[in-house]
Amino acid sequence: MLNWENIFATRSSRMRASEIRELLKLLDRPEIISFAGGIPDPALFPDDEFKAAYADIFTGPAVRSALQYSVSEGYKPLREWLVGQMAALGIPCTVDNVFIVSGSQQGLDYLGKLFLSPKDTALVTWPTYLGALQAFNAYEPTYDQLSPNGNRTPEAYRATAEEAGGKVKFAYLSVDFANPTGETVDREGREKVIELADELDIAIIEDAAYQSLRYNGEAIPPILALEIAHKGDIEATRTIYCGSFSKTLAPGLRVGFIVANAPIIRKLVLMKQAADLHSSTINQMAIHLVAERGFDAQVAKIKEVYSQRRDCMLAALARHMPKGVTWTKPEGGMFIWITLPEGMDGAKLLARSLETAKVAFVPGQAFFADGSGANTFRVSFSCANDEMIEEGIGRLGRLIADEIGG
Amino acid sequence: MLNWENIFATRSSRMRASEIRELLKLLDRPEIISFAGGIPDPALFPDDEFKAAYADIFTGPAVRSALQYSVSEGYKPLREWLVGQMAALGIPCTVDNVFIVSGSQQGLDYLGKLFLSPKDTALVTWPTYLGALQAFNAYEPTYDQLSPNGNRTPEAYRATAEEAGGKVKFAYLSVDFANPTGETVDREGREKVIELADELDIAIIEDAAYQSLRYNGEAIPPILALEIAHKGDIEATRTIYCGSFSKTLAPGLRVGFIVANAPIIRKLVLMKQAADLHSSTINQMAIHLVAERGFDAQVAKIKEVYSQRRDCMLAALARHMPKGVTWTKPEGGMFIWITLPEGMDGAKLLARSLETAKVAFVPGQAFFADGSGANTFRVSFSCANDEMIEEGIGRLGRLIADEIGG
Repeated sequence: MLNWENIFATRSSRMRASEIRELLKLLDRPEIISFAGGIPDPALFPDDEFKAAYADIFTGPAVRSALQYSVSEGYKPLREWLVGQMAALGIPCTVDNVFIVSGSQQGLDYLGKLFLSPKDTALVTWPTYLGALQAFNAYEPTYDQLSPNGNRTPEAYRATAEEAGGKVKFAYLSVDFANPTGETVDREGREKVIELADELDIAIIEDAAYQSLRYNGEAIPPILALEIAHKGDIEATRTIYCGSFSKTLAPGLRVGFIVANAPIIRKLVLMKQAADLHSSTINQMAIHLVAERGFDAQVAKIKEVYSQRRDCMLAALARHMPKGVTWTKPEGGMFIWITLPEGMDGAKLLARSLETAKVAFVPGQAFFADGSGANTFRVSFSCANDEMIEEGIGRLGRLIADEIGG
Repeated sequence: MLNWENIFATRSSRMRASEIRELLKLLDRPEIISFAGGIPDPALFPDDEFKAAYADIFTGPAVRSALQYSVSEGYKPLREWLVGQMAALGIPCTVDNVFIVSGSQQGLDYLGKLFLSPKDTALVTWPTYLGALQAFNAYEPTYDQLSPNGNRTPEAYRATAEEAGGKVKFAYLSVDFANPTGETVDREGREKVIELADELDIAIIEDAAYQSLRYNGEAIPPILALEIAHKGDIEATRTIYCGSFSKTLAPGLRVGFIVANAPIIRKLVLMKQAADLHSSTINQMAIHLVAERGFDAQVAKIKEVYSQRRDCMLAALARHMPKGVTWTKPEGGMFIWITLPEGMDGAKLLARSLETAKVAFVPGQAFFADGSGANTFRVSFSCANDEMIEEGIGRLGRLIADEIGG
């Protein structure tokens, strides 16, 4: 028997199965009410629109290019369509600023690969998107806490990074209805992140996966838009905007995008050439057709359903959670973040819940780069109907009340 | 203006545009006869079969899972179909030994990521597949020359790797009709690679991208099959087999696969979770349907056309190349490798050829990890018809004769 550990790269030795993903595999049992997933409701997929798009690709003259190799930067009509979307968000740019990736998770992997040497520091919020930590971990960084509205000095960040043996390379954050908290960074917080990044001379990775899914409140311009407003041109900015079609159209095609200044895009294109040549040609064409024909209508449909589910879950939490438990009130997205009284443990609660209450959720600790946050957990309302929400949150509230009481 | 070089990882600073790819962009001019590409002829794509496959996915019950997130290891029915294919190649395995990637280029990137720490040594042939060098380069290895039928001792390899500051991690090779040479490693060479890898305790990465495209001669078992024959079980082997659908069905869907022992597959699955979650669900389903319904017929169709083109190009070379020029006689694949008299330069010849003869090919130097091979170049016959071949090789032969003469 081979001892592979002898010849793995150091980065590989540290890879291990995500406890959350392993856990999620157990949740197919029908008696469990699950708020654990973070996936879109498949009942809302634009099936007919995709069916028509693939059929059209195969009857048009594009069929052979749809099945052939294509360029690493992505399908040009899709990049052109995205230029229009970006303009509407206050991000004037050209196709040279737009790069297609195989899902925005791939964008995060590439950005980790682009910036991080071992021991470099990535600034992330406490908590942050678990998938970002997993993508960055492959490049062996250390993490430091980014507080968008905090007051830590650039010198303090620099000193901590030097102590860890590297340099601060970027601040990663999700600004709208973030996974896992559902919270939004206000305009002041966004401006402060730009200021900090300017002072540290680092990149900003703006994860905009949920950006389109705002249910109430006023939209805040993306960090990239604010930075362009200050500096006059996307070519003068340090923000790298990561977008997704997974929450709006469908995740199964693996099509996402990055918008940034042209030198960064050119570097990412080279990286993709070496890493997987290009994203699926036919899927980029299908996403383009469906987006062009009805992106706004599709987003409106999703928002109507999800916002109603969010309302339902917030009402159920207010009704059923005992005193001492708090939660976020997201203005969009898919998630609510629950904080238990200090000293309680979300992972232990989950184990108990799967036995007795039969309700699933995701314990919060895995979302913290420093391993804190034991008394938190995440629930998603995207795939739950009113009845499931009322019943599931009710059972969970009673279990937590018992735990607090006992 | 930002100085991004300050914050790039060291690996990123070294990335640069492939001269070959930059060159290929210039070849769209209609007056150029190009043998430069290494892509399948789109006229041979099974368009109708793919059209039917996508249509069937959208009319069946699978439509919602086709558009949804899926597991990182890949679509199970496709992995099951591959188990059958592998058995026919002398590779008994289970679905736990099969992993779907977004094109076999992604497999090479993941294997570089899995094994290579900076300064580790990758053994590759001189020349080797340029895309493999590009994928591995991101992990900052050094290269040493693998000669499948050579006699260098394991101690010599080990000493060279230590001198470079790392360990030998794997031997990478393409055994059938390799890109760029078209050559095949004989059975004895394959056995010697296994012996060497056993002695060095390293992995073997077997690139089987062209494996199905044999036009004459007897098939030689894959290295993985030979190793299983010796060791009794895939779980005892060190060979990682990388397969592709890009040369048989279509590259635009980005679906390839890796077959290896289960611990390696589990590690790769974790890596993919972090890097891009999974390959496109709908495309894996489409590839599965098309493969199951008619893989053998599709391969037979391609082989008939390509083998005739190979014959045509070999005949044209014999007719038109001046004395002192030699070339390989591939038994399959898409490529012929041409060696000019010592002292001539393939890159300079290309520049001249694009001006005067108007024939394109790929200079050989980029395929050599040590920068040698200046007097070589690669031609592909996959996308050329008889007339183009006769005319293009004729012009090229006259140009080379002039260069030799002058």
